[in-house]
Amino acid sequence: MSDKLIVFDTTLRDGEQSPGASMTHEEKVRIAKQLEKLRVDIIEAGFAAASNGDFESVRAIGLAIKDSTVCSLARANDRDIARAGEALRGANSARIHTFIATSALHMEKKLRMTPDQVFEQARLAVRFARQYTDNIEFSPEDGSRSDPDFLCRVLEAVIAEGATTINVADTVGYAVPEQYGEFIRKLRERIPNSDKAVWSVHCHDDLGLAVANSLAGIKIGGARQVECTINALGERAGNCSLEEVVMAVKTRKDYFGLDVGIDTTQIMPASRLVSGITGFVVQPNKAIVGANAFAHASGIHQDGVLKARQTYEIMRAEDVGWAANKIVLGKLSGRNAFKQRLQELGIELDSEQAVNEAFARFKDLADRKSEIFDEDIHALVSGEQGEAGEGAYRFVALAQRSETGERPHARVVFSENGKEVVAEAQGNGPVDATVNAIESHTRSGAELLLFSVNAITTGTESQGEVTMRLSRSGRIVNGVGADPDIVVAAAKAYLSALNKLQSPVEKVHAQGI
Amino acid sequence: MSDKLIVFDTTLRDGEQSPGASMTHEEKVRIAKQLEKLRVDIIEAGFAAASNGDFESVRAIGLAIKDSTVCSLARANDRDIARAGEALRGANSARIHTFIATSALHMEKKLRMTPDQVFEQARLAVRFARQYTDNIEFSPEDGSRSDPDFLCRVLEAVIAEGATTINVADTVGYAVPEQYGEFIRKLRERIPNSDKAVWSVHCHDDLGLAVANSLAGIKIGGARQVECTINALGERAGNCSLEEVVMAVKTRKDYFGLDVGIDTTQIMPASRLVSGITGFVVQPNKAIVGANAFAHASGIHQDGVLKARQTYEIMRAEDVGWAANKIVLGKLSGRNAFKQRLQELGIELDSEQAVNEAFARFKDLADRKSEIFDEDIHALVSGEQGEAGEGAYRFVALAQRSETGERPHARVVFSENGKEVVAEAQGNGPVDATVNAIESHTRSGAELLLFSVNAITTGTESQGEVTMRLSRSGRIVNGVGADPDIVVAAAKAYLSALNKLQSPVEKVHAQGI
Repeated sequence: MSDKLIVFDTTLRDGEQSPGASMTHEEKVRIAKQLEKLRVDIIEAGFAAASNGDFESVRAIGLAIKDSTVCSLARANDRDIARAGEALRGANSARIHTFIATSALHMEKKLRMTPDQVFEQARLAVRFARQYTDNIEFSPEDGSRSDPDFLCRVLEAVIAEGATTINVADTVGYAVPEQYGEFIRKLRERIPNSDKAVWSVHCHDDLGLAVANSLAGIKIGGARQVECTINALGERAGNCSLEEVVMAVKTRKDYFGLDVGIDTTQIMPASRLVSGITGFVVQPNKAIVGANAFAHASGIHQDGVLKARQTYEIMRAEDVGWAANKIVLGKLSGRNAFKQRLQELGIELDSEQAVNEAFARFKDLADRKSEIFDEDIHALVSGEQGEAGEGAYRFVALAQRSETGERPHARVVFSENGKEVVAEAQGNGPVDATVNAIESHTRSGAELLLFSVNAITTGTESQGEVTMRLSRSGRIVNGVGADPDIVVAAAKAYLSALNKLQSPVEKVHAQGI
Repeated sequence: MSDKLIVFDTTLRDGEQSPGASMTHEEKVRIAKQLEKLRVDIIEAGFAAASNGDFESVRAIGLAIKDSTVCSLARANDRDIARAGEALRGANSARIHTFIATSALHMEKKLRMTPDQVFEQARLAVRFARQYTDNIEFSPEDGSRSDPDFLCRVLEAVIAEGATTINVADTVGYAVPEQYGEFIRKLRERIPNSDKAVWSVHCHDDLGLAVANSLAGIKIGGARQVECTINALGERAGNCSLEEVVMAVKTRKDYFGLDVGIDTTQIMPASRLVSGITGFVVQPNKAIVGANAFAHASGIHQDGVLKARQTYEIMRAEDVGWAANKIVLGKLSGRNAFKQRLQELGIELDSEQAVNEAFARFKDLADRKSEIFDEDIHALVSGEQGEAGEGAYRFVALAQRSETGERPHARVVFSENGKEVVAEAQGNGPVDATVNAIESHTRSGAELLLFSVNAITTGTESQGEVTMRLSRSGRIVNGVGADPDIVVAAAKAYLSALNKLQSPVEKVHAQGI
């Protein structure tokens, strides 16, 4: 058995399926490039058949990425697989990932199919996919709760048809480590042609066990591919965290005995990029990438840091890229320095005009903030692309005031399809007044589910990054906005969320894996 | 072996040790009461010998709690144990928890003691503790990395001296599940008197495995006590999450076969209370208590919610208290209704004057916000106690304005030891201007490490809860402030953090477990 663990990142597919985490085309490409820098083996870029937008994103990522294999999800039917195959046509290295539910509950309640029908459809799907590529992954959805006899029959058949990776999904996060590991081990033992495929784990974190289940699938089950996401993003409680599973395998190499190709110093930049784009904050006490992960209580310092380091640290912060947050540019930086930094960050703007606009924003920011970090540049460009690229609404200007004893007031200027609108309102606070002002004109009727602000770097001089999560008719979107003035950031976030609500809902939901 | 799993909560001890998570005396009592409502078996209330403040908190919690056992940590020396014993004198049911490091690395580098010295000190500590109680827990710090032969010798001796619980700590979060479970199983097999003690697990989450390691210690190792914290609070990446480990054991009762006494509907209120008081946010994709934990992507709704529920949900949101967020009071609620709600929430104010002050704040808030939730009341009282109780600084009033193209300006009125100060400044944004204004007078020189805002409930009308984490001379504090106006909330948070920085540093750091 190989001693290399293949890292399959699904931030852009399963992660993006998380309510509120949808990303624009450009954002997906940017994350894909960071994943390539991180040296993940496979990037699941999306679900090409879900919508034209998803198709285009998969295609663009396939063209942009050279070092990682690019993958698209596809349900086990010809249309989905054909769309995936077409989207990946230009990719340097491509994989089609097809799936169908195999548990009694899912077959009966969701698919309304008999086991024999599911068996047949799985086989035909893999056979069809071979028209496009030899790199085919098959996932039995809700695999961990499926009948082992039936599963053996299906998996043997799809391997015979040419599936090269078998991914046993714990779709609902119900598994416990030892049991899940044993489950995979027995499948591999019983299936005669199991050695013709790489076995893979795909775990959800509903009981907080996604990483442990993945590791048990590897150690006990012999899986050699792990599916995971940055910051454990994903539906409900999320997926297996890439940073945790990778650092566990690296730190405990004595136990797992496996190599991973990941450049771990790119973990923190990847974590910051994904949380910045999606607006999903990382809690301070999150392993590896949380603000406290490498912070010891102050008392220890009094006792001598060096003594404590050795006794309390099992990993070094530098190794996962905590030092990567550095000042890159300032007020005096010119257009060339800015453009070069964009390139280094993997940000590609469409035209010279887009670069000029971004540079103008950069100068404006540098006037107000003396030190510009990589995170600021990401935020600057995210905001710009989000607004310029897609939306009917665009922020122009804001004036607001609040004073104890008076009703806060805001006056917002924004454009709607290029036409300037001025709106004023009062509210309980400046942010409430700002939202009321915008709503007095747009009348979206959206409900605010979540509002959060995080500083992009440290210090009060830092930009505030505001996330607003809106819901309307069951649809949930996150808007993100950044500015040194958090009320302005809130206005930008609200407008960006409204733009997302306006975009057509045409996407098919994969409901898995 | 018993089929009951004992839940030992250490939010107030190990959780509070997390940089920035320190709590006031009153906040600790409030959390302890919520833990009692949650029906945790044992509440570790603090480390009595760390400081006079800690001693008083342990004592107050011992007096306030009836249904749970109250525990204090103590290093393995007479002074620490005597302080713990004294602090717990009035408790209905008390436990002393003593510990000493047993790994070669910790004995040599941290303790500078020989194994024989450690062995002797452990025995004597347990013997000494028996003067105060028969309920004694002993923890070998860094136990999971200790030499098994030496550990057997120490643990057999402390059980012989009367230790009734043996807690095998994975202090640095280095363990992996199967190995950790086997480690405990072998210790229990080899130690002749092991059945005289309840075995316990205490895991840290540095590799994201705290919950899985705890469960392996239970399932494979036969441990019957789990040490955990609300929201996985704790040093570095935190401890084992109470909500996750409890729901794993409950949801997979078919596998674990254990009962837990926890009232799971009190999980969400406990989670909100702890995150509100400490300012440690819970990320949306956190299992059980994250905003998304029970949220499915919108696509599923289009497919029919009921069909999906059955196939995708392994727990019900109601069972962990997600429905508990209800409107309790409004503008027309009187003093009696307010006082009664305080009682129901376990909030006890010192005097009638304190109730009057809180009620005045409540009326002020109800004027600006039509629906008042439990979370608002907690925030209201936290703020009040924090400011009135301890600090030199107290917020009075604020006026601020920002307008595109101009420098934001803030004028803050606050009191310093009862004397009113008016300070004005400009900044990059209204929050920066507010902090600059306060600093223009206080000149604390503190560095802002983290700034975050979260809405306490949903809707823009909600109060914003601001956390500011400051650092000075290696000391880290979190200030929290709530107000419908987030700039006011920021001013309150900053002043509350300054108050915490002013309180004397007298605390001994436990450095474990």
